Amino acid sequence: MRFASFNLNGKATWGLATDSGLHPVDAATEERFPTLRSAIAADALASVGAALAGTAAAVTADEADFLPLIPDPDKILCIGLNYEAHRIEGGWPVVEHPTIFLRLPNSQIGHRQPMIRPKVSETLDYEAELAVVIGKGGRYISEAGAMDHVAGYACYNEGSVREWQRHTQQFTPGKNFIGTGAFGPWLVTPDEIDDLGELVMEARLNGEVMQHTKLDDLIFPIPRLIEYISTFTELVPGDVIVTGTPGGVGGRREPPVWMKPGDEIVVEIDKIGLLSNPVVAET
Amino acid sequence: MRFASFNLNGKATWGLATDSGLHPVDAATEERFPTLRSAIAADALASVGAALAGTAAAVTADEADFLPLIPDPDKILCIGLNYEAHRIEGGWPVVEHPTIFLRLPNSQIGHRQPMIRPKVSETLDYEAELAVVIGKGGRYISEAGAMDHVAGYACYNEGSVREWQRHTQQFTPGKNFIGTGAFGPWLVTPDEIDDLGELVMEARLNGEVMQHTKLDDLIFPIPRLIEYISTFTELVPGDVIVTGTPGGVGGRREPPVWMKPGDEIVVEIDKIGLLSNPVVAET
Repeated sequence: MRFASFNLNGKATWGLATDSGLHPVDAATEERFPTLRSAIAADALASVGAALAGTAAAVTADEADFLPLIPDPDKILCIGLNYEAHRIEGGWPVVEHPTIFLRLPNSQIGHRQPMIRPKVSETLDYEAELAVVIGKGGRYISEAGAMDHVAGYACYNEGSVREWQRHTQQFTPGKNFIGTGAFGPWLVTPDEIDDLGELVMEARLNGEVMQHTKLDDLIFPIPRLIEYISTFTELVPGDVIVTGTPGGVGGRREPPVWMKPGDEIVVEIDKIGLLSNPVVAET
Repeated sequence: MRFASFNLNGKATWGLATDSGLHPVDAATEERFPTLRSAIAADALASVGAALAGTAAAVTADEADFLPLIPDPDKILCIGLNYEAHRIEGGWPVVEHPTIFLRLPNSQIGHRQPMIRPKVSETLDYEAELAVVIGKGGRYISEAGAMDHVAGYACYNEGSVREWQRHTQQFTPGKNFIGTGAFGPWLVTPDEIDDLGELVMEARLNGEVMQHTKLDDLIFPIPRLIEYISTFTELVPGDVIVTGTPGGVGGRREPPVWMKPGDEIVVEIDKIGLLSNPVVAET
């Protein structure tokens, strides 16, 4: 099943996504589970989804007003340098541990919402990534049991302002500009995916393929990431792990390719979704 | 005035701190402002504090059960390498911009709560720091107006697991272990401080002075930090900026000094407070 967060009649809600469109939760369900995150925490996706499957879609996906898939996560853990081609293009040394930085929820946007090129820099870059949404939380989760903690998958475009990312060794500023983290359009539950590693992920800028990889090129696979992260912090339902970007980012091209107002940037992952955002100048 | 967050009769609350002890908010005030953060957001500290000044203390500071000063901040922005002596002891290059990483709220502890040495590493280190709590939020705040956005100051001990901090170039894991970020005991409003830069900050491990600095040794002063941070993100009331640690950390000593179970670590800043935590082994 697929689930999305979206505005309907001017109000934030969530519901099931099918080929017919978006099926919002009814008032009683929304009272119990006001957000997708709260339904994940209650392990209620399967039952809510089954009930919504019999309803009519309120809006088509083309007309929907999507929000960031999880607008209000407790934490967003981003993995750097997790594809060999991207590690090499950046000139980074081989690492024995996952490279981890944090993104703040207020940097996020939904499918089709504008990605904002800030006033202070023209070096806005795309990063196609697979996002893993945590279902069951925990600490000291073992690799062996880690996949039981996954609620589902989605596309993420980890928009990065490279000048500010490189101000110092810590990536935080360039990874946290308002309006740069695109997340959606929907969550795909693990039962929909036969072999995650075989799926192809692409970034396309104005229709041109800029990044292209199979997901099994990850240096640190998902169970290893969950084990590592849950060693220092406690994962809770709705937490987001953004698993890293492959080679082909704009900033490592010769000459560099920066996103500019009027561009359209797409992240697509087979069977998971297509996340598209127009680029606009900050006003 | 001074304000604190604490447990009273088994329930989290907040209130005024005076030399007599802690004066909790009454039920009506707590309904309007359930947390210190919510009162900061409503710009209600002065009026609530004035009302509480006429009440009796419910508990002395020595007997109080302190929580992290702001248990639920939207974000905690930590500044690395912001004192010259610490930059030099670490062998870091001169930087033109503040070094910024994020700490998660779930890593925090209050005054006298145990600081936890994790099972996976013995390299737990202290970092005495001045915390700045944001009052009025905003984006693109100028240096000139930045101090108007400060609700007050507190002590922070940015406990760091050095092995995990150095796994990669990104500090995140070593800065986010559960039970390592001590914050308190109280918020001191700016009107209490004549000249912040003249104040002395110390870290003392089992009574021995390990760090000692005047606050005006900061490389990037508070207004510059607020301007820089609010360029990429939006600050909101209750946000915490932890402004960096001076020289003398344990990990850069020869031989290194790591905190171990049974130790007591104190961060004290003149006129701002004394933050003390016992170190315990994770069980």
